[in-house]
Amino acid sequence: MSDRTGGSYTRDELTTPTRSKERAAWDEETVHAILDAGYLCHLGFVRDGAPVVLPTLYARVGDRLYLHGSTGSRPLRGAKDERGLPVCVTVTHVDGLVLAKSAFHHSANYRSVVAHGTAYQVTDPAELRLALDAIVDQVVPGRSADCRPGNAKEVAATAVIRLELDRVSAKTRTGGVNEEPEDLDLPYWAGVVPVAPAYGPPAASPHTAAGTEPPAYLSALR
Amino acid sequence: MSDRTGGSYTRDELTTPTRSKERAAWDEETVHAILDAGYLCHLGFVRDGAPVVLPTLYARVGDRLYLHGSTGSRPLRGAKDERGLPVCVTVTHVDGLVLAKSAFHHSANYRSVVAHGTAYQVTDPAELRLALDAIVDQVVPGRSADCRPGNAKEVAATAVIRLELDRVSAKTRTGGVNEEPEDLDLPYWAGVVPVAPAYGPPAASPHTAAGTEPPAYLSALR
Repeated sequence: MSDRTGGSYTRDELTTPTRSKERAAWDEETVHAILDAGYLCHLGFVRDGAPVVLPTLYARVGDRLYLHGSTGSRPLRGAKDERGLPVCVTVTHVDGLVLAKSAFHHSANYRSVVAHGTAYQVTDPAELRLALDAIVDQVVPGRSADCRPGNAKEVAATAVIRLELDRVSAKTRTGGVNEEPEDLDLPYWAGVVPVAPAYGPPAASPHTAAGTEPPAYLSALR
Repeated sequence: MSDRTGGSYTRDELTTPTRSKERAAWDEETVHAILDAGYLCHLGFVRDGAPVVLPTLYARVGDRLYLHGSTGSRPLRGAKDERGLPVCVTVTHVDGLVLAKSAFHHSANYRSVVAHGTAYQVTDPAELRLALDAIVDQVVPGRSADCRPGNAKEVAATAVIRLELDRVSAKTRTGGVNEEPEDLDLPYWAGVVPVAPAYGPPAASPHTAAGTEPPAYLSALR
């Protein structure tokens, strides 16, 4: 996600006003803000010695992540074990496409968090309920209070895994375009194209009573 | 990413017109279409026995993926070895938030591809050049022909890994809301909120000559 191949600064970052910032961070505030801005993560684990990466939904609750385990019960079987399942959970937001005058300096602005640790299956019904509500609210803040809560059977039927956020790092790129000094006058358009998720008009299901307005928390998504 | 915890159909999928479809696919057309709709992947590999998942940019060229290796040279060192690096590359698009009358049936519409295999570092300069152009064009179709191509030094300085798409699967969820029959008359709003990436107005860098219009391929992104 970078035009840098090493850790050093390119010349133009030191000499032009369009310098970008690519940085790593470990502070809780940065990490939590990136996690709170999303709901989709990529969950990595090792199966038979090989890596597996699956998409799933998550919620952050304090210093924990809860992950929806419906990616299939087999791969996550290890989390049921009391030794837990070593995982890596990664959340990435792309914020902009960075177009430079040279192919080499093309890049993307982004924010990402990588969390390493051991995941455990949540078995306590009260914690499961909390986790499920948190996942619903991570996707649509406010929704868990505006639907029928899970009953005992549903809660028991849902797989959720827990990961403590104690080995976490963030990496971000922000800012403008890096250029080689000799490229500055090339006639190509260069700049940044912002990207963000956009929500379309909510489409009510046939079982939503006629005249029911989409709730205010859906407008807040946009 | 599902309200299903097993492989069976829920009752309402068989009895109501709002049934959703969650399916796996292995055909090339489906897999390629999902890969071609994105440019961000999550790359998983095993380091010291533990899983690591990093975001990076990719391009599909025929039956291959090329991945930008700037996620840090250390983790991808294995790909330089002639034995290669076992990886799992996952690409996910969220297409909709699915809000049911019950917390349990909340879900997301999505398309994802999971590719397993052994990745190798690209060392041939011609292939490297092709891969770098393809990655630029995967992010912004048409861009590689409208910027300065990489010179020998830049091409040599860029790490790219190659993965053959021979162990690939797709998984998608489309459609409406699943409900329990007893929930159908609950007064909550239920339905689907579409989601898609949206591009903001391109912001030219200070080194773009005044009056240079953003290229047509940027308008095509929207």
